Amino acid sequence: MKFTLTLFGTHPLSKPSPENFGAIETLAKAARDNGFDMVWAGQHYLVTHFQKFQPIPALSRVSAYTGNMYLNITDLIPLNHPVRLAEELASMDAMTGGRMVLTAALGYADHEFASFGVPKSERLARFLEAVEVIKRLWTEDTVTFKGRFFTLDGVTMNPKPVQKPRPPIWMTADNSKGVIRTARHGDVWLMSSHNRIAELKELVALYEEHRGAGRQDFHDIGISRPLMRVTFIAPTLKEAIDEARPHIEKFWRDYYGTMNQASEMNSTDDFSQPFEKLWQDRFLLADPSRCVEEIARYREELGIDCLHFNLSGALEQQLRSIKLLSTKVFPRFR
Amino acid sequence: MKFTLTLFGTHPLSKPSPENFGAIETLAKAARDNGFDMVWAGQHYLVTHFQKFQPIPALSRVSAYTGNMYLNITDLIPLNHPVRLAEELASMDAMTGGRMVLTAALGYADHEFASFGVPKSERLARFLEAVEVIKRLWTEDTVTFKGRFFTLDGVTMNPKPVQKPRPPIWMTADNSKGVIRTARHGDVWLMSSHNRIAELKELVALYEEHRGAGRQDFHDIGISRPLMRVTFIAPTLKEAIDEARPHIEKFWRDYYGTMNQASEMNSTDDFSQPFEKLWQDRFLLADPSRCVEEIARYREELGIDCLHFNLSGALEQQLRSIKLLSTKVFPRFR
Repeated sequence: MKFTLTLFGTHPLSKPSPENFGAIETLAKAARDNGFDMVWAGQHYLVTHFQKFQPIPALSRVSAYTGNMYLNITDLIPLNHPVRLAEELASMDAMTGGRMVLTAALGYADHEFASFGVPKSERLARFLEAVEVIKRLWTEDTVTFKGRFFTLDGVTMNPKPVQKPRPPIWMTADNSKGVIRTARHGDVWLMSSHNRIAELKELVALYEEHRGAGRQDFHDIGISRPLMRVTFIAPTLKEAIDEARPHIEKFWRDYYGTMNQASEMNSTDDFSQPFEKLWQDRFLLADPSRCVEEIARYREELGIDCLHFNLSGALEQQLRSIKLLSTKVFPRFR
Repeated sequence: MKFTLTLFGTHPLSKPSPENFGAIETLAKAARDNGFDMVWAGQHYLVTHFQKFQPIPALSRVSAYTGNMYLNITDLIPLNHPVRLAEELASMDAMTGGRMVLTAALGYADHEFASFGVPKSERLARFLEAVEVIKRLWTEDTVTFKGRFFTLDGVTMNPKPVQKPRPPIWMTADNSKGVIRTARHGDVWLMSSHNRIAELKELVALYEEHRGAGRQDFHDIGISRPLMRVTFIAPTLKEAIDEARPHIEKFWRDYYGTMNQASEMNSTDDFSQPFEKLWQDRFLLADPSRCVEEIARYREELGIDCLHFNLSGALEQQLRSIKLLSTKVFPRFR
């Protein structure tokens, strides 16, 4: 079982940005020193309620002290040019000695598509075409491509990525369409933190059905079935719930409320429901022994080989979660 | 007088990319330890004769050990989206505590415009509009913008840059049109390494004429008139010329030969001319005492307050140039 960590999500507007970035560096070093296998960062643009750092510069910076951990960079693919992204990620693969992973995201927030001048109706077609271009630039010496959005005429990219045949491409998905798309076009499906386990169980069956006989799991870095969970670990379950609540409740209501995230899911699982109902079977709020049981259950019910922790709470609370995971949870799975 | 350094340009295809990137890290640390004030990197895409790293991830990575040096990131503005660039550079300003500078480049290579689907005829209009959007996103809380290429409807960027009112925007220019554009729209003109000093002298007069009464020099980081020179310093002038020649001659012939760079300049100063003629008054090939004389001449003739070194040669030769500059040249100007 591998264990990975969301290195940064959002940061308070009230603090200077260098202080917020310093917290990222502290977390990165704690992850390195406590046995995590990878750090990950999401992407959004023009965020109003928080500070949010851009994953390519931020993860490039922390790569100077993340040791052997992999770096997983999310990019909103329909809003970027695949030549730029393919080149930047190849540079990151060089600087990390081949430890770069891409999470190719489709995007959903209306203000982002509007600000980039990309019709949301084109997002899927752009996404699929861009992923194809990136794969070809990473693996072929001379690329000629005539698509609906992108045209390349005998071009070559140097350097190519260090990883052969190429770095893994993860995709996030929290509904049937996304899961089928990931089964067909992605290397690895990062199971979303939005869904309850019960809902994911149905999506895993769908994934396997559409993965088909021709597609092997992509095992190059030892992760083929990762599950993301919003997590808060404390000495007791009551502390975990009570301390996590103010952070999670506000974030899901304010942030996802402005982003239309819930509307993408299969279920009518509105994120504005009362916290007592919202968290059940969705967030990993636990003491260490409950955490061990939950991970064992996820492995049995979903077949996961990686738990991806999206830790809630202030920096000190996240560092406590990391320490409890490292000392009381990870040893049970290694 | 400030002294700045091109941290990376191009790297041999024959070496693994992590080894080429390691040379960048070695140079960055040498620059930091030898009194340089800033490191800089250019940008190109889809380069065939060399490996070339992308400046945002590469400079973000080296920022972990560049101490108090500024980082100057070149971006081919017409090929990028200003929202993405403004956000990525603000993240870099946070992680460096306010030491990020942008060199806004217009671009010239046909294959780059074709591969990004941007008509070269639009490059200037896109450049000017994107620079305006970046300035507004960096300084205004809510940005509404309706341009020919970009539309923003009441959006906000967080975090804003650390530097107030905003980070400096440099522009490169090696011909009259570019110099007039820089005088009008840029904060700082980086005088090009392509031109001979005699030609630059005429361009400086043009810059000052068009800078006009309303535009103060942008002094925030103590550099307002930087000059870039391709440089090779050796114990004797003969060694400098003989050792630099194979590196410079091949690079200018092969690389610029494929890029149409020379065609942008005012003069008919073809880069394929014999080396003995090519280097005179253009490249800074020198022993330390000639180097001191040349910098003093540039200061007198062009009014520079910063010499930007684009060092030629293998890594060991570049490190020798750095050591000779640090011990025998810099002390004469500080």
